Amino acid sequence: MKCKKCGAQAIIHLKQHNIALCAKHYEEFFLSRVKKAIHMFKMFDKSSKILVAVSGGKDSLVLWDVLYRLEYQTEGLYIDLGIGSYSETSKEKAKSFAKSRNLTLHIEDVRKYLHGLSTPEAAWKMRRKTCSVCGLVKRYIMNKFSHEGDYKVIATGHNLDDEAATLLGNLLHWQTGYLGKQYPVLPKTHEKLTPKVKPLILVTEKEVATFAIMKGIEYIFEECPSARGASSIVYKRLLNDLELSQPGAKQRFLMDYYKNKGIFDNAEEDSVKLNECSRCGYPTTQEVCSFCKLTERLEQKLNEKRT
Amino acid sequence: MKCKKCGAQAIIHLKQHNIALCAKHYEEFFLSRVKKAIHMFKMFDKSSKILVAVSGGKDSLVLWDVLYRLEYQTEGLYIDLGIGSYSETSKEKAKSFAKSRNLTLHIEDVRKYLHGLSTPEAAWKMRRKTCSVCGLVKRYIMNKFSHEGDYKVIATGHNLDDEAATLLGNLLHWQTGYLGKQYPVLPKTHEKLTPKVKPLILVTEKEVATFAIMKGIEYIFEECPSARGASSIVYKRLLNDLELSQPGAKQRFLMDYYKNKGIFDNAEEDSVKLNECSRCGYPTTQEVCSFCKLTERLEQKLNEKRT
Repeated sequence: MKCKKCGAQAIIHLKQHNIALCAKHYEEFFLSRVKKAIHMFKMFDKSSKILVAVSGGKDSLVLWDVLYRLEYQTEGLYIDLGIGSYSETSKEKAKSFAKSRNLTLHIEDVRKYLHGLSTPEAAWKMRRKTCSVCGLVKRYIMNKFSHEGDYKVIATGHNLDDEAATLLGNLLHWQTGYLGKQYPVLPKTHEKLTPKVKPLILVTEKEVATFAIMKGIEYIFEECPSARGASSIVYKRLLNDLELSQPGAKQRFLMDYYKNKGIFDNAEEDSVKLNECSRCGYPTTQEVCSFCKLTERLEQKLNEKRT
Repeated sequence: MKCKKCGAQAIIHLKQHNIALCAKHYEEFFLSRVKKAIHMFKMFDKSSKILVAVSGGKDSLVLWDVLYRLEYQTEGLYIDLGIGSYSETSKEKAKSFAKSRNLTLHIEDVRKYLHGLSTPEAAWKMRRKTCSVCGLVKRYIMNKFSHEGDYKVIATGHNLDDEAATLLGNLLHWQTGYLGKQYPVLPKTHEKLTPKVKPLILVTEKEVATFAIMKGIEYIFEECPSARGASSIVYKRLLNDLELSQPGAKQRFLMDYYKNKGIFDNAEEDSVKLNECSRCGYPTTQEVCSFCKLTERLEQKLNEKRT
């Protein structure tokens, strides 16, 4: 196949856009898609200090790479979850990426927050699913770090496939509490909450992987061992199957949801007041936030064992 | 596998209900699921004169068979769409089914309504998709026949898979005009509109086929040739794929939608007034109904050709 722009050998065929592109024009296309998302959803500008949530996987490293190429002010935050060799390898990938581009990478270790336990250890102790504890802990640390460092936004590497899969899962299970909340920009609803943005919302997983390989970005290939069998993988497969018979359906599904998400607005729920956690001072709808509840319960359990 | 009720050889394993059943207990189960749907959604009772929409396929014949076994008052209506040997075969299946049970089957030929043309011929003449013309014509004839015959309800063979697939398609394409309308009972919103009910809403396609085979019901196996490549087939495949990894997900998806469908209520749209078509007198939101527009335009086209 030939590049639609210059006739050179194409490296990728984008069926949903009905174009094939060479390496040079694919890079141009990819950067323009990210720029489009940033502008369309008014995510940030050149004056914004951006904290990139870096996992060492392809999405977060490609995101950081693109923001760096587009000359945005970025620093990275890697949260070490203590998931054995998976965490070790992903941390190394993140570190060497930052070093090669002379970018600042901060590293926070969950053990500092979880009484010395890793995420799987804490989840096991609490008889909870690792992914649920991991999500809570990451969100908390990310926000705290960002607030203390005075970052304007937190940018995460969620791509089109991630977001469409989350939406499909929420619809298939009628998670009405989540429907209507999902959006590429989560605004600042409290002075201590940093807005979150998803600049890769207009590019697919395959497009991100192609960009990473083309640019020689070394990332961790393995999925997190705790996430094996995650239902999001099923939803992604369903959407890819749909995409095969209806090219572009995945993106239309997500974009038309953004246009129609007002359907799910719930005046009662949306007016829930955020107050400050009586322990840590960070925003919560309860008296004590979920993170402080988790760490307090964890401490109790550890003490029970010792006595 | 053994029947959970009696220990005999099971003929079906219902993963979503976590049971295997023998022929006798499967019949009991199947009838009870249909009874449950009829009662849960208050579809009709023993005093209701029911018109069963019969296509000659497994769903409509199983529906008619079950209603007959449950001793409801039923008559069938087969609409001959004139789709070559497909229509011939399906009509024969419907006729021999009715004859074997001494039930009344009415037959209406679309050619009586479409100036002598079959559905595919009319669609071709109008440069429209066969399925769209077919749907319009079937709905119109079904309602007119039922109103004139004073039937209480029209019962159609839509099963769980059909309804879940329609819902998924409407969600994937954000067909907000259709979302919120889909329900197992479409009420009487005008004096000349017969309510429509879907008693097979709690049984899957596989369960219907198993019942048909077990009871020796002869139905037409082929799909309608005009419907080949229909997107509903894609949505059914996606949902079956989901069901494999999350048994019961298909039914929960549909049932939870029924509980939450108020989300899609649109006060403005719902207040649209139905008046009577200035040509045929049947309900429409316009001055002339879509069916009369179709047949008038068809007549013009036929006359143009002749002159």
